[in-house]
Amino acid sequence: MTPRNPDYEQAVREAFARQPFMGYIGARVAEVRPGFVELRLAYRDEVGQNHGFFHGGVIGSLADVAGGFAAYSLLPPNSSVLTVEYKINIIAPGRGDELISRAQVVRAGRTLIFTEIKVCVAADGTESLNAVALQTIRAMTGGPGIAF
Amino acid sequence: MTPRNPDYEQAVREAFARQPFMGYIGARVAEVRPGFVELRLAYRDEVGQNHGFFHGGVIGSLADVAGGFAAYSLLPPNSSVLTVEYKINIIAPGRGDELISRAQVVRAGRTLIFTEIKVCVAADGTESLNAVALQTIRAMTGGPGIAF
Amino acid sequence: MTPRNPDYEQAVREAFARQPFMGYIGARVAEVRPGFVELRLAYRDEVGQNHGFFHGGVIGSLADVAGGFAAYSLLPPNSSVLTVEYKINIIAPGRGDELISRAQVVRAGRTLIFTEIKVCVAADGTESLNAVALQTIRAMTGGPGIAF
Amino acid sequence: MTPRNPDYEQAVREAFARQPFMGYIGARVAEVRPGFVELRLAYRDEVGQNHGFFHGGVIGSLADVAGGFAAYSLLPPNSSVLTVEYKINIIAPGRGDELISRAQVVRAGRTLIFTEIKVCVAADGTESLNAVALQTIRAMTGGPGIAF
Repeated sequence: MTPRNPDYEQAVREAFARQPFMGYIGARVAEVRPGFVELRLAYRDEVGQNHGFFHGGVIGSLADVAGGFAAYSLLPPNSSVLTVEYKINIIAPGRGDELISRAQVVRAGRTLIFTEIKVCVAADGTESLNAVALQTIRAMTGGPGIAF
Repeated sequence: MTPRNPDYEQAVREAFARQPFMGYIGARVAEVRPGFVELRLAYRDEVGQNHGFFHGGVIGSLADVAGGFAAYSLLPPNSSVLTVEYKINIIAPGRGDELISRAQVVRAGRTLIFTEIKVCVAADGTESLNAVALQTIRAMTGGPGIAF
Repeated sequence: MTPRNPDYEQAVREAFARQPFMGYIGARVAEVRPGFVELRLAYRDEVGQNHGFFHGGVIGSLADVAGGFAAYSLLPPNSSVLTVEYKINIIAPGRGDELISRAQVVRAGRTLIFTEIKVCVAADGTESLNAVALQTIRAMTGGPGIAF
Repeated sequence: MTPRNPDYEQAVREAFARQPFMGYIGARVAEVRPGFVELRLAYRDEVGQNHGFFHGGVIGSLADVAGGFAAYSLLPPNSSVLTVEYKINIIAPGRGDELISRAQVVRAGRTLIFTEIKVCVAADGTESLNAVALQTIRAMTGGPGIAF
């Protein structure tokens, strides 16, 4: 996949940094490639549910945002993205020290971009699959240029 | 819909109170009826995205959790629920003072419970539809009895 | 909802008639209103699965097509629609004499149209809910003007 | 993935053969491995839409059924499967001579089985991705043993 913004990584990192909610829950950008983004989030109680696992809302958020930025990495400068919809299957409890969300663009049209996301939990250095998601992103060029 | 726990409302409110993430983002239970739950969340920057709207992850979280507790309200004491999957269409930007998520059970089987969720944003007292979702919840009886 | 094609009903019925697959399985348009379409299909073995119920593929097809035409009913002449995605929860077995799929547009943007679909089965004159679905449709104006 | 039925391939092929709808549209089982099924369907007008492409309902049907049988291949004898839900993103038009649906189980629990499906179209010997889907299947042991 070919990025249309030579500074795509910086664009992703800057737009991510401007999302208060991502900072609030403690998520960070771990890796950016054209059409691919990995986000990570360390466990702490504030992002948990009753049993000390990652909360489903946090899992869904990290899936959605990774997908949005994977799409964003392929857009020209001064573009925006909008989540049209996503669907997530939570296939195992979110038990672990770190949540890792990896999103890959499967098709980038001019208006609509489709992504696939895998969310893993890492416990004592071992990763296991926690959730899988499919997402539709709408690309808007000429917008404010700060992603979502 | 007939609740199997006469104290279903208290059960929902107590289980909700035990989810650190819900308290962290500032969500509250506004209404509980058998098979129905309404959650509300006031806007502040920590739950926003770049433009000062509710973050998509927050919208998804409130949809998911409202659905889970709508299912939970129908279960006997000492039950748990687990989100199997959900799908959300974000049909308008999350611009407003308050986010309102209303979930209704459409079918409650013994093992699987299906819910429909509407998320609205209220701005200056006027509500508008922000997102619609479908969800599958798994019920587990005899569990720890504290919902998710 | 206001149709932009005064002959919206005729447009829906003609486009439907041009889909060989709909005729092949025996589906028909039962009702058209602006933003709403109802399709019906009588049971026969060719649309069944192992137990003599409506096949899941037929249920999904009727959901998808009803949603697409509900969107189409709101478009100006010489428009086309494309299914971007849909998600369906099958909440009960498809047991009955007739399958009824009712789709309602929940938001019609310029490019994307969102629909909600309920599929019922009727047995001895009594309807019961069989499936619920959410769908995203893409509208294309100036296209070949024959829907999908 | 380890099948619990040594005759899993025969079980899949026999159950598939008992679905009238699959025969009616002309689908066939191309490959079976534990947790994996490939279905194929040659183009003819009866499975098409207005433009001579594969109908969306046929695409969705082949995705759903491939996923169901991928799950079924892992079950013990005398089991059944039920589609709980699926979600499909149609990422390109279904233009081609043959439709190929490949489903892979991503997690097989005792009650719920999750699958991922890719649907391709082949035109002049070249495959391209047409749709991606996620699905939840419910396994029932001790049932009639004829799949769906």
